[in-house]
Amino acid sequence: MHLTQNLSRSIQQTPDAIATIYQGRKRSFAELGQRVAKLAGALRQVGLAAGDRVGMLALNSDWYLEYYLGTYWAGGVVNPINTRWSAAEIAYSLTDCQTRILLVDDAFAGMIEDLRRRSPELQTVIHIGDGAAPAGMLSYEALVAAADPVEDALRGGEDLAGVFYTGGTTGSPKGVMLSHRNIFVNSVAMVAEGAIQRGCTGLHAAPMFHLADGCFMNAMLASGGCHVMVPRFEPTAVLEAIQRERVSEALLVPTMIQMLVDYPELPRYDLHTLRNMLYGASPIGEGLLDRAMKTIPSAGFTQLYGMTELSPTATILTQEMHRAAGRKLGRHRSGGRAAISCEVRIVDALGKEVPRGEVGEIAVSGPGVMMGYWDKPAETAAAVRDGWMFTGDGGRMDADGYVYIVDRIKDMIVTGGENVYSAEVEGVIATHSAVASCAVIGVPNDQWGEMVHAFIVRKPGQDVTPEEIVTHCKERIASYKCPRQVSLIDAMPLSGAGKILKTALRAPFWEGRERKVA
Amino acid sequence: MHLTQNLSRSIQQTPDAIATIYQGRKRSFAELGQRVAKLAGALRQVGLAAGDRVGMLALNSDWYLEYYLGTYWAGGVVNPINTRWSAAEIAYSLTDCQTRILLVDDAFAGMIEDLRRRSPELQTVIHIGDGAAPAGMLSYEALVAAADPVEDALRGGEDLAGVFYTGGTTGSPKGVMLSHRNIFVNSVAMVAEGAIQRGCTGLHAAPMFHLADGCFMNAMLASGGCHVMVPRFEPTAVLEAIQRERVSEALLVPTMIQMLVDYPELPRYDLHTLRNMLYGASPIGEGLLDRAMKTIPSAGFTQLYGMTELSPTATILTQEMHRAAGRKLGRHRSGGRAAISCEVRIVDALGKEVPRGEVGEIAVSGPGVMMGYWDKPAETAAAVRDGWMFTGDGGRMDADGYVYIVDRIKDMIVTGGENVYSAEVEGVIATHSAVASCAVIGVPNDQWGEMVHAFIVRKPGQDVTPEEIVTHCKERIASYKCPRQVSLIDAMPLSGAGKILKTALRAPFWEGRERKVA
Repeated sequence: MHLTQNLSRSIQQTPDAIATIYQGRKRSFAELGQRVAKLAGALRQVGLAAGDRVGMLALNSDWYLEYYLGTYWAGGVVNPINTRWSAAEIAYSLTDCQTRILLVDDAFAGMIEDLRRRSPELQTVIHIGDGAAPAGMLSYEALVAAADPVEDALRGGEDLAGVFYTGGTTGSPKGVMLSHRNIFVNSVAMVAEGAIQRGCTGLHAAPMFHLADGCFMNAMLASGGCHVMVPRFEPTAVLEAIQRERVSEALLVPTMIQMLVDYPELPRYDLHTLRNMLYGASPIGEGLLDRAMKTIPSAGFTQLYGMTELSPTATILTQEMHRAAGRKLGRHRSGGRAAISCEVRIVDALGKEVPRGEVGEIAVSGPGVMMGYWDKPAETAAAVRDGWMFTGDGGRMDADGYVYIVDRIKDMIVTGGENVYSAEVEGVIATHSAVASCAVIGVPNDQWGEMVHAFIVRKPGQDVTPEEIVTHCKERIASYKCPRQVSLIDAMPLSGAGKILKTALRAPFWEGRERKVA
Repeated sequence: MHLTQNLSRSIQQTPDAIATIYQGRKRSFAELGQRVAKLAGALRQVGLAAGDRVGMLALNSDWYLEYYLGTYWAGGVVNPINTRWSAAEIAYSLTDCQTRILLVDDAFAGMIEDLRRRSPELQTVIHIGDGAAPAGMLSYEALVAAADPVEDALRGGEDLAGVFYTGGTTGSPKGVMLSHRNIFVNSVAMVAEGAIQRGCTGLHAAPMFHLADGCFMNAMLASGGCHVMVPRFEPTAVLEAIQRERVSEALLVPTMIQMLVDYPELPRYDLHTLRNMLYGASPIGEGLLDRAMKTIPSAGFTQLYGMTELSPTATILTQEMHRAAGRKLGRHRSGGRAAISCEVRIVDALGKEVPRGEVGEIAVSGPGVMMGYWDKPAETAAAVRDGWMFTGDGGRMDADGYVYIVDRIKDMIVTGGENVYSAEVEGVIATHSAVASCAVIGVPNDQWGEMVHAFIVRKPGQDVTPEEIVTHCKERIASYKCPRQVSLIDAMPLSGAGKILKTALRAPFWEGRERKVA
């Protein structure tokens, strides 16, 4: 079980099929295999030893796939870097897991001087791009051209495959250690679930450093599909790529789906090849799902729920459950059911399963559960108990095993003794026609403990007052769940993965106070 | 990764769906789960400790599935017994792996006295059946009724799951040790390959003690399907079960397919629900495949190639490759390509990959490769080298990775310095309209070293002379490949898995001589 195995299978079975398409550049599996074997040779030449970490700080490209596969092939461990992080955060993660070799593209080459200063471990910087390497950096293309291909080091099974830093939405970043087995089994299970079709053409528009896209990438490797990359999510680039390369599957986060379906030029593109739109990383509001299904009728929607610590998928909500029969049962509001190879339970604070229908913490076990957090045994022991990963997400499970994610445990608002799930309130606000995105948090209140507070970004050219939002909510949910205060803002603070940073929204209200979490 | 996980998922997600159908008796996943947890409790009560082997000597039934799952649930290790073996062979295997608990049905209860005498380790015999237990045996149903359900022991991962005895066609039986991980990953990969459809109704007609059917059973558990059992392969029982229970998938060995398609009453049954007929355990002759595809037009055919030591699948030949486009390329004559999670190479005697198109030994690596043979370190070291299982099968690989199995390495005939693959000759003979089945072996000859000898079973009411068979061959293959001698016999000697026992055919010719194998 090594993560290069699927590449080897494709080289053996479909050597001439197109493996990668990036800005018009197409490479076959045979070519990809050659480049991966030569990149591995180059990495060993610059001093990579078995198990050494290799970082990548770059936008999406065909180089990103080569980086993952070439690092594994060389016997290294990937450390893909969140491009939204500050130099201080990146340097922290590089130093934390002693990454000595870093690949960087033109978009981030300007940060290198600062990173070198902050992270003295950093020895070798390799520049990817079509132009010449800046001073002090090696040229990726020159290295690959000069290197001899090497044999696959065949690290696999329980060997560490990658350190994936997470925690952008909370405190200090934690390096999630995943083994080859963790990621391999999870990706085969995704194909078994039908989430990735064999022979697909998949679009990488979500950032390739993140394991949400990584899940898609690894499952596509198992299914032997063609990888199309755009540098970053941008509606025109995405729509053009889908039309030009006849993309059949795409993985996006809900904020991207929203930008796409609200893009006025969308109807001008031929998107009929798109048959499966996977989404994850955060739940999707019902209003947005409605719009998305109307706007791209050829595509089915598949939700994946999970987290980096789970390699990453835990549950899957199939296309069927987004359609009429499933919607009638309310299944489209769930995160789906335990995927093949995963077990899911809703547990109380002691880890004991709660009765069906009751809210508790979502716990997951199976071959995808991480090895642990890098150099953080206490955090690991708190998160993984007896083989179960405690996700920090609150949810309930219905009689058929569908999991409804109600909130991050820490995002639940306790007001006047009642539990309010911010996600439920957000779902209601999102159905208002003037709302582009929203976030609901608890702010301190002497009388009720916490008070429900909503942040709203309006759609371009649309207006709505705080009072109208409150009225909209009162018509739909219990009064105690409705926001007491509404802030209209221009844009949401987002993490590298496109998640709304509630910590940032919450910070000014909680300065100097400690917030109790259930 | 534990083999009860898929049962737990089905109990959670589809508790009321039918899990098993046996002779009109239907049980839901909730009921199956209850019975498995109680059987596990009963096994612990009779003294099962973690890792202890539990044998089963029985025809197919719903009890067989309970046995597998209940043993795993209790923390035990399965040791399913080949029902075609003699008491001496069975006793050898029971003693070899120290099986102290044995389940037996009415068909084999008569052997118990003899087995107890030959295998003193045997302590507890549990009788399965609807009637009362014979003297000296415990009643399965009484034990299950009285037992308290226990928690899943959760053995998994690298823990030993089963000892599967193999070698009925060769010398002394070897106990193939497979871990939970071995079997689990292989079965998820089968679903990922589309070999088993989600929500299927699958027929167990091949013996459930054998891992060919075990592969089907475990993949069906992963896909959450319904298991229909018939006690043993018998055309009427199979056809009636398909019609009555609307069976969608069936796994058979080629000799069974042959008996089915030659069965005169077949056209009277409604078989239109059958959409996938999986076959394996031995290659299928082209003549038989033709007849089968004509006789059951609704069904696609999927070939699985593997062996117990591989948990068991290595390659898969999809339905598409059995149809016009695939046949035009000759793909239907192959065993397919490396399945997801498997790597396949054709290697020389030193284990080095041979050029594409050349014949060598088929070697396989991946998560399915066995832990080893029970208490046979030398045989294990000879079979598994550097993570690669040397299958003993000769084959070649084409440019697209399709593997053509030419013969067992030991069944290759060397005559006058030329290699003759018995399977090739058999394929040609099988296309003769009067031939029901055939086997080709090498017999000693002073002039040529070995000489090609064919055994033929004729179809009922059909006749053919040895001379006509030789003429039929000479029109189609090189003269040196054609049989010099043809024996017309009434029936082939078969192993428990339905494989033709070439050792038995070969024995009288080689008595007192040693046959050299490449």
